[in-house]
Amino acid sequence: MALNFKVVKTQRKARAGVITTPHGDIPTPVFAPVGTQATVKAITPRDLAETGASLVLANTYHLHLRPGDELVREMGGLHHFMQWPGPMLTDSGGFQVFSLAQINRIDDEGVTFRSHIDGSRHRLTPESSMAIQENLGADIIMCFDQCPLPTDRRVVEQAVERTRRWAIRCREAHSDEGGQALFGIQQGGIFPDLRAASSAGLRELDFAGYAIGGLAVGETKAEMYATLDECTPLLPDDRPRYLMGVGAPDDLVEGVLRGVDIFDCVLPTRLARHGAVFTPHGQVNISRAQHARDERPIEEGCDCYTCRTFTRAYLRHLVKAGELLAHTLLSLHNVRFLIRLMETLRSAILGGTLEQTAQSFLSRYLQPVV
Amino acid sequence: MALNFKVVKTQRKARAGVITTPHGDIPTPVFAPVGTQATVKAITPRDLAETGASLVLANTYHLHLRPGDELVREMGGLHHFMQWPGPMLTDSGGFQVFSLAQINRIDDEGVTFRSHIDGSRHRLTPESSMAIQENLGADIIMCFDQCPLPTDRRVVEQAVERTRRWAIRCREAHSDEGGQALFGIQQGGIFPDLRAASSAGLRELDFAGYAIGGLAVGETKAEMYATLDECTPLLPDDRPRYLMGVGAPDDLVEGVLRGVDIFDCVLPTRLARHGAVFTPHGQVNISRAQHARDERPIEEGCDCYTCRTFTRAYLRHLVKAGELLAHTLLSLHNVRFLIRLMETLRSAILGGTLEQTAQSFLSRYLQPVV
Repeated sequence: MALNFKVVKTQRKARAGVITTPHGDIPTPVFAPVGTQATVKAITPRDLAETGASLVLANTYHLHLRPGDELVREMGGLHHFMQWPGPMLTDSGGFQVFSLAQINRIDDEGVTFRSHIDGSRHRLTPESSMAIQENLGADIIMCFDQCPLPTDRRVVEQAVERTRRWAIRCREAHSDEGGQALFGIQQGGIFPDLRAASSAGLRELDFAGYAIGGLAVGETKAEMYATLDECTPLLPDDRPRYLMGVGAPDDLVEGVLRGVDIFDCVLPTRLARHGAVFTPHGQVNISRAQHARDERPIEEGCDCYTCRTFTRAYLRHLVKAGELLAHTLLSLHNVRFLIRLMETLRSAILGGTLEQTAQSFLSRYLQPVV
Repeated sequence: MALNFKVVKTQRKARAGVITTPHGDIPTPVFAPVGTQATVKAITPRDLAETGASLVLANTYHLHLRPGDELVREMGGLHHFMQWPGPMLTDSGGFQVFSLAQINRIDDEGVTFRSHIDGSRHRLTPESSMAIQENLGADIIMCFDQCPLPTDRRVVEQAVERTRRWAIRCREAHSDEGGQALFGIQQGGIFPDLRAASSAGLRELDFAGYAIGGLAVGETKAEMYATLDECTPLLPDDRPRYLMGVGAPDDLVEGVLRGVDIFDCVLPTRLARHGAVFTPHGQVNISRAQHARDERPIEEGCDCYTCRTFTRAYLRHLVKAGELLAHTLLSLHNVRFLIRLMETLRSAILGGTLEQTAQSFLSRYLQPVV
């Protein structure tokens, strides 16, 4: 198997582990920043490495359309192309096809759609998603799935069944020999019985890891946590569990408590581009007038380049002046904040203090900033 | 005097020297990248230091309007605010008032204008320009001048006379005690007799350095070089000479040959934001299809982070995809290119080979790229 996963310590449902990939180890639980178009927006790879990032995600849909996965392959694969030396993960393209593209037809065979860039016509199937992800060459690749809104039972039911059939085809189309580990994706919306059916179908296929799909796409936080309570026990203990597209600090904590190992999200970089930063006391918009003469860093004690170097007053100026450097500096902090949070949670699991640590973080983070 | 200038070696008109400031030494000739709003666009200070930048410019007009020079002073001055530890220079605000703002009135006392940001009403005078630049706290500050189009003799004549009167008032308003060195600005357009009159007036005031203003604002390159032939001998040998707003590689070479010591320009960062990069064989637009699978760096042998790390194929992808990282990476190369060119010219002066070096650079740079 291309990927090895070892659980080092557990505390109730939570696990501290290590995933071993051809491009290095990933201590879990882990937050993976997203480099949609083969770049984590506004961050150089060397600055990204300094945030402590171990796993970086890239998007199959975007890279297939531009610059093209064949080109990436010719240029030595994604790691070489974007000069990220560490572990990488690509999604299947499914989520973006359903959310970004203009869909022409969905059938059992696959999805025909028009590019959001130039309107050109494309087709994704389980087999082509595998071929594209093999061209890209990430360490972890994902089954092509159908991600429905999580609360419409009839639609979710159909998506679960189609995702299962597609998972079988992905499993057949993919060879582990290239060193890429294939993850299955559990669907089922907010319905425990559908989650169970989905998991059972996937487990038969013995994937290297299992993703929990179809959450954080419209349901409430309470629904998401309740669903997670049901989801994780359905998946095998000896494989990594990946909650796709989730990155709010409180959701990371709640996910870890429920036994999730991997998270990814564009949230830290997207918020940064809107002037918002994470702090232990919640999200802060740095462009507010109260920061005009604020000589403090974003977060006292944070070890990121931004907090070690710049005042809130300067960062506010950059945001107000529309300067590109604002995106870089706020993104660096936000990514580091989530990675540091995961490091803290991992240490707490290893030290057996996860519940206190989680409770202490959540009570500070969720109280409004004074 | 706040600033010391030593000419180490000359070759014909060209000089290799060292300017000593309270924030460190500046080997000359030097190219200064521009941090208009207290940031060289898309570049962190530590990456900027890696380009070899010694002197960095910031704009008085922009910083007076936003975040305000009083605020910058309260935050410890420009060096501390933007975390640039090396030498800095601020312009007088005059050029931007005349080019960016909506001017309400120009009279002998000063200029009344409306902000390009919010339309608010402001007034700049020689005295207020000095006060603002003292608040900003750069090592080198500039006299408030009037910069006319260089080819209308009657207008240039009036600007020369007004600039002289304003220089007297700047000299009186400024105290060297704060450690800031004040430079005078020679005007005179493309007219040698007006350049001579302007220089004579300024030399009486014994400035720490002298700028050549009013060039690269509409005249031809031939006119600029011919004017420079006349300009530099009019200025004292023992003071640095600063050609404002000039940054094209061929212009830097021609300027150094004529005895200029300091240059600044937004060109390297502005070009970068349009996908254009400097190479020894001229300017190249990296977004062209020919670079789609180009595994070479922008410039073979360049020691910048971008050339050490990324292919043209990847950089082209970033540009085509509209990724912010493109601005950062192309800017880093372009700034380093100009700084490396200045290092090369300085070595050539020290080694007595400037003319061959200059000729060799110009013949490669000015021939069209195949």
